[in-house]
Amino acid sequence: MTSKSFVQEAEIRVLGLCVSKLLHYIWYNFFSIALLAKGIKMKTHTLLMPLDMHLHLRDGVMLENIAPLTAYSFSGALVMPNLVPPVSTLDDIKAYKQRIMAAVPNDYFEPYMTLFYKNYDKAFLESVADSITAIKLYPAGITTNSEGGVSSFDIEEMRLTLQTMSDLNIPLCVHGETDGFVMDREAEFMTIYELLATNFPKLKIIMEHITTKAAVDMLEKHENLYATITVHHLLITLDDVVGGMMKPHLFCKPIAKRPEDMQALLSVALEAHPKVMFGSDSAPHPQHKKESCGCAAGVFTAPIALQLLCELFEAHGKLDNLQAFVSDNAQNIYGICAEFKEITLEKRPFIVPENYSGVVPMYAGETISWAIESVD
Amino acid sequence: MTSKSFVQEAEIRVLGLCVSKLLHYIWYNFFSIALLAKGIKMKTHTLLMPLDMHLHLRDGVMLENIAPLTAYSFSGALVMPNLVPPVSTLDDIKAYKQRIMAAVPNDYFEPYMTLFYKNYDKAFLESVADSITAIKLYPAGITTNSEGGVSSFDIEEMRLTLQTMSDLNIPLCVHGETDGFVMDREAEFMTIYELLATNFPKLKIIMEHITTKAAVDMLEKHENLYATITVHHLLITLDDVVGGMMKPHLFCKPIAKRPEDMQALLSVALEAHPKVMFGSDSAPHPQHKKESCGCAAGVFTAPIALQLLCELFEAHGKLDNLQAFVSDNAQNIYGICAEFKEITLEKRPFIVPENYSGVVPMYAGETISWAIESVD
Repeated sequence: MTSKSFVQEAEIRVLGLCVSKLLHYIWYNFFSIALLAKGIKMKTHTLLMPLDMHLHLRDGVMLENIAPLTAYSFSGALVMPNLVPPVSTLDDIKAYKQRIMAAVPNDYFEPYMTLFYKNYDKAFLESVADSITAIKLYPAGITTNSEGGVSSFDIEEMRLTLQTMSDLNIPLCVHGETDGFVMDREAEFMTIYELLATNFPKLKIIMEHITTKAAVDMLEKHENLYATITVHHLLITLDDVVGGMMKPHLFCKPIAKRPEDMQALLSVALEAHPKVMFGSDSAPHPQHKKESCGCAAGVFTAPIALQLLCELFEAHGKLDNLQAFVSDNAQNIYGICAEFKEITLEKRPFIVPENYSGVVPMYAGETISWAIESVD
Repeated sequence: MTSKSFVQEAEIRVLGLCVSKLLHYIWYNFFSIALLAKGIKMKTHTLLMPLDMHLHLRDGVMLENIAPLTAYSFSGALVMPNLVPPVSTLDDIKAYKQRIMAAVPNDYFEPYMTLFYKNYDKAFLESVADSITAIKLYPAGITTNSEGGVSSFDIEEMRLTLQTMSDLNIPLCVHGETDGFVMDREAEFMTIYELLATNFPKLKIIMEHITTKAAVDMLEKHENLYATITVHHLLITLDDVVGGMMKPHLFCKPIAKRPEDMQALLSVALEAHPKVMFGSDSAPHPQHKKESCGCAAGVFTAPIALQLLCELFEAHGKLDNLQAFVSDNAQNIYGICAEFKEITLEKRPFIVPENYSGVVPMYAGETISWAIESVD
């Protein structure tokens, strides 16, 4: 399928799903004309219904502290299920969603729920299908709280689950890393993506937080492969993590790779390739767990992601593509209709806070060039 | 020159320099026979006159805390000159050596002094030749306190200094990294080593703390290229630094590389290739400068280096080669005669201290399998 026909088909599907979205778009077009005149002196940019399609909200006090930051500026987020224990029953899903909603009482915000991948039977999958947006697969032990993940990719063992997911149109989100050498893990995983994509050609498979040219190249090879890209992997390479001083707040899994990998990610993100969408992989850890003798993996970007994306897309003269990258593509790929929310960003210096409730964000204390002006 | 003829020539040179060393060797051979019987039950290994040919001792309180740890178990160490300001005058050298000696009053220990590379004139080099063992070249800004280093490798600008060093038989120690991508920096520097080695064929050039197969391969290409290897680069790859939790106490420059690079280093270290010698690059930083939002580069191994080397060489069945790697090769390459010191290590569990005066060593709190039994 070509990208063009893909977009057309996807857009028709979404329009069918949600007429109110069309009205929002019409309204947005009128609004943008008004903004244009205003923007000449204000340098503003408006995003509608931004979505973060890969987010860690954790639980308990951390959830309460962190969820409002995303709910403030995003319409919704795909919430990862790697709690301890992982989200793996219908009760887990409903209860976690309730806790998230309780943490963000004053915002229009949709947590798109995910289930932790295990081999589930058909009856169970049918029972949860309406309550989840996707199922998230972790190789066992590959990242934070993933110990109960998949330890071997035996397609026959996984066939019942994956075929049922395909039949029920439940997308599979995958943390695609082997347990090999840290710089090779994602590229090595491409053979597993090929195996999944060819065995389940109707299953939507999202290659999560891709970091390599190898993964970008895969997008064109299989119709049913999609990808999320973080903002930090569009901005940093391994050089930023360990090339000067070592930076624990830029340490994540998958680790940032080589310059040519970042360029490949930029090439599809800046063009808002219809098979890629924004997923922050924002992952909060308390400061003492980052600045320690064994630093936890995760970059915390949730409260500054849209600002950084504006800065990046503007620097490349691609601001017009940001709407698709942060919302439209995701709605098309997942066939979801986001809660209406309008975020206006303004081009003015913004000093990133040193921490948010004890969690140090990317670029803490540094000045970035866009700030959130208003949320409606 | 073949390795064999190289060894013969080097040994003759050293014997000429130092008859007392020959006596030590004879004594050591008798002693080792006695130990053999003893060792069957005790599992001991004795090293004579170990040398650390790349060491950071810093200054002030840190020097006072750290220098005794090396002086306890090593006969001598090549002391790096990257203080603030760097060691670059005869007075600097003499004063720094005095401060080092004052910090280790109760040990037989020789600090082999180095001068910070700049373009010096002939008269100056002649005036310092007897007070230094080598001159250390840093590319500008490439590592801790290297801001005053070489910013461009213009051979004609450097010719007078390097040719005079060659004439005076002053070895050139080089931190061989470009300012490129962190995983490529050392390999990219090989062209500069080639330039130096071919333009000054009589100048002894030490490729310091090599971390790559590319550098190992260079040893055979130019007669006047030598290398130091740290113990940590024989034990870790980038996987150990950022493959699981991020480990600031394993972060150093050059960064640990790929598994195939570590294998190449092991191949020459375990065989005690006559052109390689042990240099710990042990670099102390206070704990708060390692476990922080910007972690300083340097692994602190000085107090456990010999124990780790025993463990490693024994695991590979190469304990017999350790004496050459930690002492003989260095004496041959530099033409020095080390202070007599005999270190007996015993194979028994040793828990690495959590810190030494606030500096966290490699493997802090972990158990290694060799300990220092006695020092004579």
